[in-house]
Amino acid sequence: MSGIVFRRAREADLPAIVAMLADDELGKLREDTGLPLAQGYLAAFEAIDSDPNQYLAVATEGDAIVGTLQLTFIAGLSRKGALRGQIEAVRVAASHRSKGVGQKMFEWAIDECRARGCILVQLTTDRDRLDAHRFYDRLGFEPSHLGYKLKL
Amino acid sequence: MSGIVFRRAREADLPAIVAMLADDELGKLREDTGLPLAQGYLAAFEAIDSDPNQYLAVATEGDAIVGTLQLTFIAGLSRKGALRGQIEAVRVAASHRSKGVGQKMFEWAIDECRARGCILVQLTTDRDRLDAHRFYDRLGFEPSHLGYKLKL
Repeated sequence: MSGIVFRRAREADLPAIVAMLADDELGKLREDTGLPLAQGYLAAFEAIDSDPNQYLAVATEGDAIVGTLQLTFIAGLSRKGALRGQIEAVRVAASHRSKGVGQKMFEWAIDECRARGCILVQLTTDRDRLDAHRFYDRLGFEPSHLGYKLKL
Repeated sequence: MSGIVFRRAREADLPAIVAMLADDELGKLREDTGLPLAQGYLAAFEAIDSDPNQYLAVATEGDAIVGTLQLTFIAGLSRKGALRGQIEAVRVAASHRSKGVGQKMFEWAIDECRARGCILVQLTTDRDRLDAHRFYDRLGFEPSHLGYKLKL
């Protein structure tokens, strides 16, 4: 566990990342792990990678990708012009769950947000992900908001 | 009400926007409407205005600014590389509340998200804003998520 290293995701990491997004009770209904990857994944990666306010990260152990998350830095006028960090698309590889990888990922992500000058880190999580709620509670997050979604 | 027009916010709109952010039971604790505006607001405006994935909007009626909201377009790998629209910092001027301005603002915002190719519009709202919850429910949003925040 001491060998977890974080870095910005590369295009070559996409199959591993998409596989992690799909290996999840909700994600398996939404993703397509077929190779070559659907063009939407490549286009989204390009949009993320070229945006200085986006940081798609992978957690690695040796050559293996063992986790992923996406940070978005959002400038806003609220709270005297505060920058906030938003975390989306968090996954830990099935082979590495319950070993503290998620904890390390969040510690890393929160440090990144702090280093960027964020005053707040925010995320939403599905109401059905009860294990995730306990995890975020332990990390000190407050479930102060409701997260509304409208499908277009 | 037929005369509500939406446009991108300009720097000269900032005092009116900040006044709306502050004119709210939660916002009044967080904002500073003193003029000249605190530098944080100006820096945040510059960051927002120069970012093609941000759209800080004002609703106007004649020369008056009667509402504001901020759209952020977030590319992500999830859901096959879907673009999502996020709405933050929604306010209607006190003089124009309960007149359907909020409804028009959301219809406009949802149309903007659709035009950008978003497959989802998302927002979080404080658990204490019960009127807001009813409003989002009526608009068809699903309160499917919990919104967690961590102050740094």
